[in-house]
Amino acid sequence: MTVRKELLNNIRIVDPYVPGEQPRQKVVKLNTNENPYPPAPEVKAVFDELKEDEFRLYPDPTSGKLIKALADQLKVGEDQIFVGVGSDDVLSLCFLTFFNSEKPILFPDITYSFYQVWANLYRIPYVCPKLDGKFRIVKEDYYKVNGGIIFPNPNAPTAIYEEVDFIEDILRHNRDNIVIIDEAYVDFAGKSAISLIDRYDNLIVTQTFSKSRSMAGMRIGYAVSNPELIRCLNDVKYSFNSYTMSCAAISCGAAALENTEYFKTNISKIVQTRENVKEQLRDLGFECTDSKANFLFVTHPRYDALKLFEELKEAGIYVRHWNDPKIKDYLRITIGTDEEMKIFLDFLKKKIGA
Amino acid sequence: MTVRKELLNNIRIVDPYVPGEQPRQKVVKLNTNENPYPPAPEVKAVFDELKEDEFRLYPDPTSGKLIKALADQLKVGEDQIFVGVGSDDVLSLCFLTFFNSEKPILFPDITYSFYQVWANLYRIPYVCPKLDGKFRIVKEDYYKVNGGIIFPNPNAPTAIYEEVDFIEDILRHNRDNIVIIDEAYVDFAGKSAISLIDRYDNLIVTQTFSKSRSMAGMRIGYAVSNPELIRCLNDVKYSFNSYTMSCAAISCGAAALENTEYFKTNISKIVQTRENVKEQLRDLGFECTDSKANFLFVTHPRYDALKLFEELKEAGIYVRHWNDPKIKDYLRITIGTDEEMKIFLDFLKKKIGA
Repeated sequence: MTVRKELLNNIRIVDPYVPGEQPRQKVVKLNTNENPYPPAPEVKAVFDELKEDEFRLYPDPTSGKLIKALADQLKVGEDQIFVGVGSDDVLSLCFLTFFNSEKPILFPDITYSFYQVWANLYRIPYVCPKLDGKFRIVKEDYYKVNGGIIFPNPNAPTAIYEEVDFIEDILRHNRDNIVIIDEAYVDFAGKSAISLIDRYDNLIVTQTFSKSRSMAGMRIGYAVSNPELIRCLNDVKYSFNSYTMSCAAISCGAAALENTEYFKTNISKIVQTRENVKEQLRDLGFECTDSKANFLFVTHPRYDALKLFEELKEAGIYVRHWNDPKIKDYLRITIGTDEEMKIFLDFLKKKIGA
Repeated sequence: MTVRKELLNNIRIVDPYVPGEQPRQKVVKLNTNENPYPPAPEVKAVFDELKEDEFRLYPDPTSGKLIKALADQLKVGEDQIFVGVGSDDVLSLCFLTFFNSEKPILFPDITYSFYQVWANLYRIPYVCPKLDGKFRIVKEDYYKVNGGIIFPNPNAPTAIYEEVDFIEDILRHNRDNIVIIDEAYVDFAGKSAISLIDRYDNLIVTQTFSKSRSMAGMRIGYAVSNPELIRCLNDVKYSFNSYTMSCAAISCGAAALENTEYFKTNISKIVQTRENVKEQLRDLGFECTDSKANFLFVTHPRYDALKLFEELKEAGIYVRHWNDPKIKDYLRITIGTDEEMKIFLDFLKKKIGA
């Protein structure tokens, strides 16, 4: 049965966004910036103890247990946190809630690709200042008239982190605009801009459980700001769907925050692997940005990135490549375990080192 | 810190929707139409076996395992199903995707309250035909010019179910409009309109795991239609958030469909309890609609509904009441276990029967 033209007239037609590949067969999976280590043991323990009654009942619409655990962890009020189904859900709601100006919002020309998708979906005008020759954000570009600002720190896929005073300079020049700092990777990098929340009422910081907390599968993200902006987000969220966070996400998310020791060890293992791999790639002639994330952004002067991407894939090693002309010579490589990175490096050594 | 007026100018301000009460203390909870019985044992088994690796990896963005299980169950193609975070997520996306006409959409004046919230949020014009004196939908009201139609069957909170030929009449008079039948409660009622999908390209049917499948806590809903309309929904969904369904929701949802025997027994227990309670309420002088859902919609000629609602609450028995003048004399009572209903009825007998 084909749907008739008459019926299609009033349907919203959008450019389909196709998510990255999620191979289910056994591969060395270095393509979607997941954490190679399992979540804290507390998570599985809490998960296994979830009562059947919690399945049949609606979850707490305020996600109270998770909000409380985050507030304790981040040393902010419970009314300063908003949780959602991954940071994509949180960021998408932020676009809808906070970017309602006629003036264009600003985000870098090389950055997380979903910003453009949301801006188009919600018909928000936008301008994308260029990164400099070293893939750095030029802060002065964000001092001009705008309807809001968003960028990740560290930026993706460049992996470059800017210090908190850089963020503060942008906040100071944008007192009447909302500035969203997307800190998906900040735990691998340095200080969070959450430290500025009390001084800048225009700041929203988002973070996620998908990277440093090893919980991409459970879909948990959150925003931190002042109570007034968080209330605006909640009001919009409750008009879509009161119960977005499942019983499992709420309980496991709270449990994931309990074990700081495990968290720190996990992070430092990944950072150490990252620095080792960076060095070995440089020895092989690769150029890497100064990555502070759980991935590397690399190019080789003598090897075609797309070709290398395909050869790696054929060998069962998945990394990420974009056809965007600005970054088509680069690959993004997620930091896996030392064993996974050895397989990756051995392949490159055979190919390039020879 | 108070957010300055300058900053609030460009923020989307919406009327906050406040979800129903979710008491965490021990009460007789007959207020949000949950299933009193746990999900099929297969669900907990699959849940307990989820590997830690599934926590750390992004879930399958296509929710393939769940889609396949649903397609097998419903005897439709896998490309005819869309899954989301509860039917609220699915319905909200349907409004955004399919209701883009300048003409008003139609839904009953007494129905699921979220329809009006979404219409307002997306600025969709709407008209609400009145139910008749017996709370029935008048199908001829849906034959006039419109930009789309939605209603639940059984309707909520009236609990009245219309047969499939009633739905078909509306479909036939609306060949160029999308008609969405929200079948959250259909498993307690009768035949699903899914049987009409192959003959009407304008039909979308939504269902949920929150009621008959005892899984409100896991947030799973779905839409069934022809492949072309399902593709439109997916395109819009992927522009928000590729990974909405957690690893737990995908696996548990698929497992919940395995045990048809358990499902049928569960439903028939609830239906039997419903019919018993209906009779006993009538003996106490209550008027009940001919409920085919997992809840009753009742009024008493001599007792004020709001007062009764409050007295029940004081006694630890939660039911639902609305201040809407059209239904302020009514209470909605979820069907619980026989034990829970006995507590409820004993309270009423003492109050009213005396």
